[in-house]
Amino acid sequence: MPPATTAARYGSRPTMKDVAARAGVGLKTVSRVVNGETGVTAETESRVRAAIEALGFRRNDSARILRKGRTASIGLVLEDLADPFYSPLSRAVEEVARANGSLLFAGSSAEVPEREQELALALCARRVDGLVIVPASDDHRYLEPEIAAGIATVFVDRPASRIDADAVLTDNAGGAREAVAHLIAHGHRRIGFIGDRPHIHTADERLRGYREAMAAHGLAVRGDWVSMGATAPERVRAELDRMASGPDPVTALFAGNNRVTVTAVRVLAERERSVRPLALVGFDDFELADLLRPGVTVIAQDPARLGRTAAELLFRRLDGAAESPRRLELPGRLIVRGSGEFSPHD
Amino acid sequence: MPPATTAARYGSRPTMKDVAARAGVGLKTVSRVVNGETGVTAETESRVRAAIEALGFRRNDSARILRKGRTASIGLVLEDLADPFYSPLSRAVEEVARANGSLLFAGSSAEVPEREQELALALCARRVDGLVIVPASDDHRYLEPEIAAGIATVFVDRPASRIDADAVLTDNAGGAREAVAHLIAHGHRRIGFIGDRPHIHTADERLRGYREAMAAHGLAVRGDWVSMGATAPERVRAELDRMASGPDPVTALFAGNNRVTVTAVRVLAERERSVRPLALVGFDDFELADLLRPGVTVIAQDPARLGRTAAELLFRRLDGAAESPRRLELPGRLIVRGSGEFSPHD
Repeated sequence: MPPATTAARYGSRPTMKDVAARAGVGLKTVSRVVNGETGVTAETESRVRAAIEALGFRRNDSARILRKGRTASIGLVLEDLADPFYSPLSRAVEEVARANGSLLFAGSSAEVPEREQELALALCARRVDGLVIVPASDDHRYLEPEIAAGIATVFVDRPASRIDADAVLTDNAGGAREAVAHLIAHGHRRIGFIGDRPHIHTADERLRGYREAMAAHGLAVRGDWVSMGATAPERVRAELDRMASGPDPVTALFAGNNRVTVTAVRVLAERERSVRPLALVGFDDFELADLLRPGVTVIAQDPARLGRTAAELLFRRLDGAAESPRRLELPGRLIVRGSGEFSPHD
Repeated sequence: MPPATTAARYGSRPTMKDVAARAGVGLKTVSRVVNGETGVTAETESRVRAAIEALGFRRNDSARILRKGRTASIGLVLEDLADPFYSPLSRAVEEVARANGSLLFAGSSAEVPEREQELALALCARRVDGLVIVPASDDHRYLEPEIAAGIATVFVDRPASRIDADAVLTDNAGGAREAVAHLIAHGHRRIGFIGDRPHIHTADERLRGYREAMAAHGLAVRGDWVSMGATAPERVRAELDRMASGPDPVTALFAGNNRVTVTAVRVLAERERSVRPLALVGFDDFELADLLRPGVTVIAQDPARLGRTAAELLFRRLDGAAESPRRLELPGRLIVRGSGEFSPHD
């Protein structure tokens, strides 16, 4: 509709002028009160607030923001908006932002480095005060001018590359060691690992933990027991079928993340009746894992705590905390539910 | 670090000047090519592109955006970043945005009307070209100045209130009628409904469908068979326990959304052994619903299609499609898996 019409419709709305007239003060005084600026006596301020109350005046945030150039806000760059792992993480970051009077703008890199950079710089250009980043890039020097310009930046889930920055991570290698040791403790010697693409920090760390646990128990790792790549169901299904068949099949699988685990659960549910059950431990917990039969044994991360910790660190930086960049590692937690407790002979 | 240091570190990076020198053209010409502006011959453009390629020049997006004031972008206002229903919807919107050369910025209202307005206006102030909104507010007149100023707006999952705007919805009442008719067809007469808070469009529509289906089969609805409110597990658990006990318990439950269904599945899994199974049909599908025992019968929405349809409509508007606001309704789909097929006598 043409602005004229809009203006007409809005003619009835109280304006700052109306507030000024009712309070018997100047327009600038109303603006000072509305924008929380100084230079207004308590008595005058209360008169203005009374007038705002009485008239039901609501400042036009959009106009105000355009004038002031910004509202308090932070940006969140995720890897994938649709991965349920990031949902509680995002909400936790948003809750901390809200508690600090900031809005959160989120977007995802879809695991494309250029996309991460484009999104992070676009958020900076829109004057966010800080960024929480789940990185896809392996070179974050593009952020140095922004950081130098005062944009606080905290990495979460994966660390920054080629710059020194705050990071809040899960102890991925430690969690993976615990998962594989659990399977070994139940008698397994031929244990497969299906993980996300190599060079993704979390995927590499979990592979490292798998290898370390096998080595610590004097077990060799056959090349065809390890498969790193996209977590698309078709690939995971094919790799699991391959590892679980042949003359010398694996008797247990360590699934590298929740996407892999969910597909593995489907594949095993289909096999179940015909053959001896394969033991399964997954990295990342997921909704309803406890209601499946068998329940799915996992190494649970705490994505909400990752997000909350990262956002709180970001706001401490914005409040001027100046100590050098920190790396916080949160432990994973083994949750035993049944799928990881089959012996090779069950 | 001080900008000086940064400048030094970046001293080695190729600049537009380097590109201009190598291509033997002026700086303005390079800028035209880099920013996709007109007024450059194909021959000159290819020389500039060759120089950019050879030098590995990358424009500083941040600086460019600050200069130009914007990149192409759209905003998405969700109800809850952590509700898995919105994950595929968000990703679909982002994929359409990407296909149209736009970035997506998302945030959530946490179902607070003021929060929705604050977020939507803050996105407008940051010069998004358009908004896709899952509304929490019941008065969207605050958007009229933005719409008049040319911001395209499409509502999804729930319609706009008090303004005439594009909306892409699921046929909630129709899906609810189908769910309840399915339970009636399996012999149920005492059917409970637990839904989200009243005045949420989807909750009200699903309640309407429930009542219409009961009425269509000549079945009275007892007041204590209907419970609308927060979908917190504690409330859902208490209400389901109440409906399923007493002298005249319900024999079936229609769950108003995925949050309610997941809690109902937990409660029923705990009862199962002791008492006769309660039939359950849920609105919204959810991951692994098919792997539970019994599988969960649902009315599936297609959140990815909702998001894709809304975003495509938004970009058609941005391309100048001027017909009057449209309301598109996508059908729900009954998926039979076992939980909804118990008779009252099983």
